[in-house]
Amino acid sequence: MTNEQDTPTSDGGARRGRSKSGGAASRRASRTAAVHTSLPVLQRNLPLMEVLSPEGLETIEANAETILQEIGIEFRDEEALEIWKEAGADVQGQRVRFEKGMCRQLCQTLPSEFEQFARNRDRNVMIGGNRTVFAPVYGPPFYRDYETGRRYATINDFENLVKLVYMLPALHHSGGTVCEPVDVPVNKRHLDMVYAHLRWSDKPIMGSVTAPERAQDTVDMLKIVFGDEFVDQNACSISLINANSPLVFDDTMLGALKVYARNNQACIVSPFIIAGAMSPVTPMGTMTQALAEALSGLAFTQLLRPGSPMVFGTFAASMSMQTGAPTFGTPEPAMVIMGMAQLARRLGVPFRSGGSLCASKTPDAQAAYESLNTLYPAVCGGVNFMLHAAGWLEGGLVSSPEKLILDADNLHMMQIMQGGPGVDENAQAMDALREVGPGSHFLGSAHTQRNFETAFYKSTYADSNSFEQWEAEGSRDAYQRANDIFKKMLATYQAPTIDPAIDEALCAYVAEKKGSQPDLNF
Amino acid sequence: MTNEQDTPTSDGGARRGRSKSGGAASRRASRTAAVHTSLPVLQRNLPLMEVLSPEGLETIEANAETILQEIGIEFRDEEALEIWKEAGADVQGQRVRFEKGMCRQLCQTLPSEFEQFARNRDRNVMIGGNRTVFAPVYGPPFYRDYETGRRYATINDFENLVKLVYMLPALHHSGGTVCEPVDVPVNKRHLDMVYAHLRWSDKPIMGSVTAPERAQDTVDMLKIVFGDEFVDQNACSISLINANSPLVFDDTMLGALKVYARNNQACIVSPFIIAGAMSPVTPMGTMTQALAEALSGLAFTQLLRPGSPMVFGTFAASMSMQTGAPTFGTPEPAMVIMGMAQLARRLGVPFRSGGSLCASKTPDAQAAYESLNTLYPAVCGGVNFMLHAAGWLEGGLVSSPEKLILDADNLHMMQIMQGGPGVDENAQAMDALREVGPGSHFLGSAHTQRNFETAFYKSTYADSNSFEQWEAEGSRDAYQRANDIFKKMLATYQAPTIDPAIDEALCAYVAEKKGSQPDLNF
Repeated sequence: MTNEQDTPTSDGGARRGRSKSGGAASRRASRTAAVHTSLPVLQRNLPLMEVLSPEGLETIEANAETILQEIGIEFRDEEALEIWKEAGADVQGQRVRFEKGMCRQLCQTLPSEFEQFARNRDRNVMIGGNRTVFAPVYGPPFYRDYETGRRYATINDFENLVKLVYMLPALHHSGGTVCEPVDVPVNKRHLDMVYAHLRWSDKPIMGSVTAPERAQDTVDMLKIVFGDEFVDQNACSISLINANSPLVFDDTMLGALKVYARNNQACIVSPFIIAGAMSPVTPMGTMTQALAEALSGLAFTQLLRPGSPMVFGTFAASMSMQTGAPTFGTPEPAMVIMGMAQLARRLGVPFRSGGSLCASKTPDAQAAYESLNTLYPAVCGGVNFMLHAAGWLEGGLVSSPEKLILDADNLHMMQIMQGGPGVDENAQAMDALREVGPGSHFLGSAHTQRNFETAFYKSTYADSNSFEQWEAEGSRDAYQRANDIFKKMLATYQAPTIDPAIDEALCAYVAEKKGSQPDLNF
Repeated sequence: MTNEQDTPTSDGGARRGRSKSGGAASRRASRTAAVHTSLPVLQRNLPLMEVLSPEGLETIEANAETILQEIGIEFRDEEALEIWKEAGADVQGQRVRFEKGMCRQLCQTLPSEFEQFARNRDRNVMIGGNRTVFAPVYGPPFYRDYETGRRYATINDFENLVKLVYMLPALHHSGGTVCEPVDVPVNKRHLDMVYAHLRWSDKPIMGSVTAPERAQDTVDMLKIVFGDEFVDQNACSISLINANSPLVFDDTMLGALKVYARNNQACIVSPFIIAGAMSPVTPMGTMTQALAEALSGLAFTQLLRPGSPMVFGTFAASMSMQTGAPTFGTPEPAMVIMGMAQLARRLGVPFRSGGSLCASKTPDAQAAYESLNTLYPAVCGGVNFMLHAAGWLEGGLVSSPEKLILDADNLHMMQIMQGGPGVDENAQAMDALREVGPGSHFLGSAHTQRNFETAFYKSTYADSNSFEQWEAEGSRDAYQRANDIFKKMLATYQAPTIDPAIDEALCAYVAEKKGSQPDLNF
């Protein structure tokens, strides 16, 4: 892990940007500002896409209650079982069964929306309502770029991905395990990851979930940045707690969930489902199971700390019935996303799903089709927090900086589309139509000149030049062009400022924690 | 142009398929049937995506009437001007101005939906309502495949594309100029094109629009296939009439439009717009102009033959304000598609727009992102007839068999998604959930076994195998795999049957027309 202190080189531009001084410094600052600007969180102005009728929704809700009552959920954690017993659930071994309506009732204390704080308060995000927050890919052990190919990911890759996400305006969130830095021991890598997010970005972050003590490290590092009292009162992190579908929460996930909920830190409680293997093969069956899992997990958080901010999550892929391989971008998981979003809205809790998911090994046409076939229903169906919104390849096994660039461009467009068209006098453009008339063109009209800068989204990577020019430039495809772009971005990266005392304290915390235990790989 | 008669080799399988004989012939027949099956026309069960409020729609409608009254439309055809004068419009030179409400009033005789007939009546398509018909790319002078690269298209390419479209179940329509066969003289190539659609496919077709006599040839060839009286009473073709935006209909387009409308053959009356050049730079301004153009063109058809079936069309791309190049997949044209669909529904006329449009030179990630960013709002916004739904590359300059394969796969998924999830007892899968319970898997459950064949869409081209297997198979991307697929399809193509007398008459018509005029290239 690099451990640099602030230098004029690394963040001077940003500092000058804030000081608003004139001349060359100001020009540099505006360049810096352009690179480092986040879009505000996406606001949906278009109507939601929905796949389930009120009757369909009621059937799923009734069936989920039947599952909770009849079949129950396994909580593989002694303390969790005690808590459930005390709350009045029927606990037999690890199996917990719930009276109809019990979990839903417990979920009443969940906030319908909440603010997640970022180190830079301008980048705080509201999660819930008609908003969508885009966060990068989470979890890949491998990294691939056009030049080096596919290999295990490292902490250097991790830091580069954090820096790229920081610079991409369409990503509102720094995410969590943007790749697994497998060159760092398992019991220490979370320290480097949390530090990298806090130091090389100033967007909101995700915490570690691989062990309770690692979740605690995350909370302790947040306290260094935000202060103890502030962390206790506000969501300064959001963390991903996956159910072990079907119908199980394991001790690792419950351990981390307990730490975060008791510290009032947000979690996404997400059934992670390859439908057909981990849930029934039908969308409706999958939705029923996912609702039962999410309801029980979310209810448990409210026993730990009523009012703690949580997100209702669903991750569902389909599978090849021939090979058992997970498949992405198919219509059935798209239906699940839209239907689960409806169910989450009825529960009144923010919803997580979607992402630019694909099975493809490289950022080719397959990757793009599959990604958009997940992303579109997710955005239009009303997802509030979208993990894996950019950078995902090969079923989530691979993190790709090129895919990150391509996806982020696409996210930016999605955000503009959801804004809807302007309808004011300038948008109506009657002056242009009167000026130009039949058989002429609008290129030089006053209206066109007036709207020149803002008309039409301009892609960062797409080539719209003539075939001849494209050929003269080497006949390069989107993958190759995105490779250029991410390397140029890293070359111009400037770190956000940080209070040197805070940075020092973070580094000391990491050093102490790393020094006090042996390297372990579990 | 090839001109084969039926042989047992070319269509024996299909014939045996219909005879339903047993044994090996039957197995061959079911293989053939699988290849040649069309999906029924897409039915939308999901709610429509809409971008305009009722107030926004009313503003556009009012502004379009102002354009029609104040600025007017140029009709560059003497007879058209006479017809308008007679109808009571204000004609000055080629400029026609309309009292407010006049065009909309004339549009009242347009059918709200109609059936287009195919040579194989099982493939007739209903156009309008909550349906979407997918037709292939239209118009590219170039052809590109993975092996031969980019070159001028030929009649052999044309025939191969017609055969592929015939074999792809997600394409409901054979289309028209799937590529320009530039090796055939301009004044004769329409004869080869219409013949190829009628002979090598049995799906519904589009007619020639490049001159009135070529439109008449199309009608005459249809009469050979369907009979004179039948053609006069039914839409046996649909043809593409583009306005010359802004606010002009030229003599070529009007010449063809007159032939088709008088023969009761369907036309799509489509403003073709690169926004910023041919319309204002704002979505709302573009929609206003497109509505005025479509209203006046559609109204004109109803003066020619009231009740003739027509489609309200819109083609709108954005442009690079830096280079003037058309751009695709951007959010602004997506808004135009959804808004124009709303305006067409208010007029009560079937709507055409969308397609798998892109600027990309090859079927790479750019091509796929751009295509889906047009296709998704088009399907979800309620397009009824979608030209360019598959096979389009490079701003429509290039027709690509690989892109055709990739797009068609995607269209198939879109169709399943718009069907929505099942909600019956089997879909609810409570038996599976009860059988499996927590911590197990569903692979062997009775419910999974029962739904094995139909669970999850199975892509024709996507690779979901392990990285190791993919690498062992040559690390091939979607473009390369689609190349394999289209070549294999052509190798197994079997022509649909045709009455030999009809085929003979068609061939005689083409030969006579070709022999009676010199080769011209305009």
